[in-house]
Amino acid sequence: MRQFIVSGHDVPTTPDFSLDDLAGGAGRLDVLCRCVNSAFFLSHAIREDVKVHLVLADEFTVTFDGSEIRRLNPDERSTAALVRTALEHREDAIGHMPAESTPGVSIRRMGFEATLERVAENATVVELHEDGDPVVDVEPPQNPVFVLSDHHDFTDREAELLAETADRRVRLGPELLHADHAITVAHNYLDTQGFTTY
Amino acid sequence: MRQFIVSGHDVPTTPDFSLDDLAGGAGRLDVLCRCVNSAFFLSHAIREDVKVHLVLADEFTVTFDGSEIRRLNPDERSTAALVRTALEHREDAIGHMPAESTPGVSIRRMGFEATLERVAENATVVELHEDGDPVVDVEPPQNPVFVLSDHHDFTDREAELLAETADRRVRLGPELLHADHAITVAHNYLDTQGFTTY
Repeated sequence: MRQFIVSGHDVPTTPDFSLDDLAGGAGRLDVLCRCVNSAFFLSHAIREDVKVHLVLADEFTVTFDGSEIRRLNPDERSTAALVRTALEHREDAIGHMPAESTPGVSIRRMGFEATLERVAENATVVELHEDGDPVVDVEPPQNPVFVLSDHHDFTDREAELLAETADRRVRLGPELLHADHAITVAHNYLDTQGFTTY
Repeated sequence: MRQFIVSGHDVPTTPDFSLDDLAGGAGRLDVLCRCVNSAFFLSHAIREDVKVHLVLADEFTVTFDGSEIRRLNPDERSTAALVRTALEHREDAIGHMPAESTPGVSIRRMGFEATLERVAENATVVELHEDGDPVVDVEPPQNPVFVLSDHHDFTDREAELLAETADRRVRLGPELLHADHAITVAHNYLDTQGFTTY
C-alpha cells in the first residue's frame, strides 16, 4: 500500500468554513484537496491501494481510503466538502478511534505525531528533503508512506519527528515541488519501479 | 521553453459561467485549471519559461505566459476567474491576433488545429500515447510542447492532426494519468534531464 501524510497547518478544525474561499478563509485547504486528487486519481480509475492522511492543524486527521471511497471527484471544492463533512463528525472521534463520515473517509482526534507513529508501524517512512538521495537511486519500498507539508515548511517539531522516524530521505529532482506535485512524481516513481518499467 | 497545449472539449466560450460549479456547469474547466497549476507552480516560485495554451471548445485559445503572468494563484477557482476574464475580451481577439486580458494571459480566436500549428513552428511536438516509447528512453527536447486532452479522449480529428504533427510519441508510465498529473511528470522528466540529474 502507498500512503501519504500531509500536514495542513492553517486549515480549519471546525466545519464552519465556506467552500467558495478555500485558498483564503479555509487556510489553504485547497492545497490538501489537490493532494487527495494526486494521490487517488488515474484516468478513469481510482488508485484503490492508497491512503491519504490529512493532518488538520495538528489536532485532527482525516483519512481517505482508496479501497472504500465512493464519492470522490477530482475538483478541489467537492473534496473540501468531504473534509467539512468529516469535521461535522469530529465529536464522534473519541480517544484515537476513527469516526467514519462518508464512505472511505474517517476522522481521528490525532495530530501529526500520533498519525505518523500510527502509520509508520506498517510502512517505510519516506522523507522528501532537498538534501536527500536522488529518488532514482533508491529502491522503491513495498509499503511507503510519504510525509509532506502544505504551503508552509514543516514546523521544527514536525521536522524533528520526521527525521527520527524516516527510513529513507530522498529528493525528487532539482526543483522544490508543491506537495500535490510531489505525490504525482512519487506515484510515477513507484508505478515505473524507479523509472525502469514503462 | 516548455509548452503545453490542453484541449478542453466541453468548456464554455462565453464568460457567463459560475466559479462555484467548475466541475459541472463550466464543462470541467477545473481540469484545465489544474493543468495551469501543474505547469507553472514550484514551491515559492513560478516557472517563467513555460507557456500553457488552453483550447476552449475548439474555438478560442487562452494562453498563459509564465514570463509575464502576475496574478496566478494555485487554486482552481482563481485560475478559472482568469479564463473568465479572458473570455470577456473575446470580441477583442480579431483574426488570429491575441487580446491580452490580464498580465500574461491572452485570448486568440483559434481552435486546436491553428494553435497546434502555430506552437509547433518553434517546438518539438510530444504526443503522450499509451503505445509510445518509454519517456526515460527519449532524449529530452530543448523546446518541447506536450499536447494533452481534458477528461475526454482527443477527438478523431485532433488525434489525426497530432499524429501528423508529433515529433515524438512517448508514454510516461504504465498508468494512464490525468492531464495535470502528466504535466507534473513531464516537468520532472525535463527537470532531471530524463531522470538522471537530481
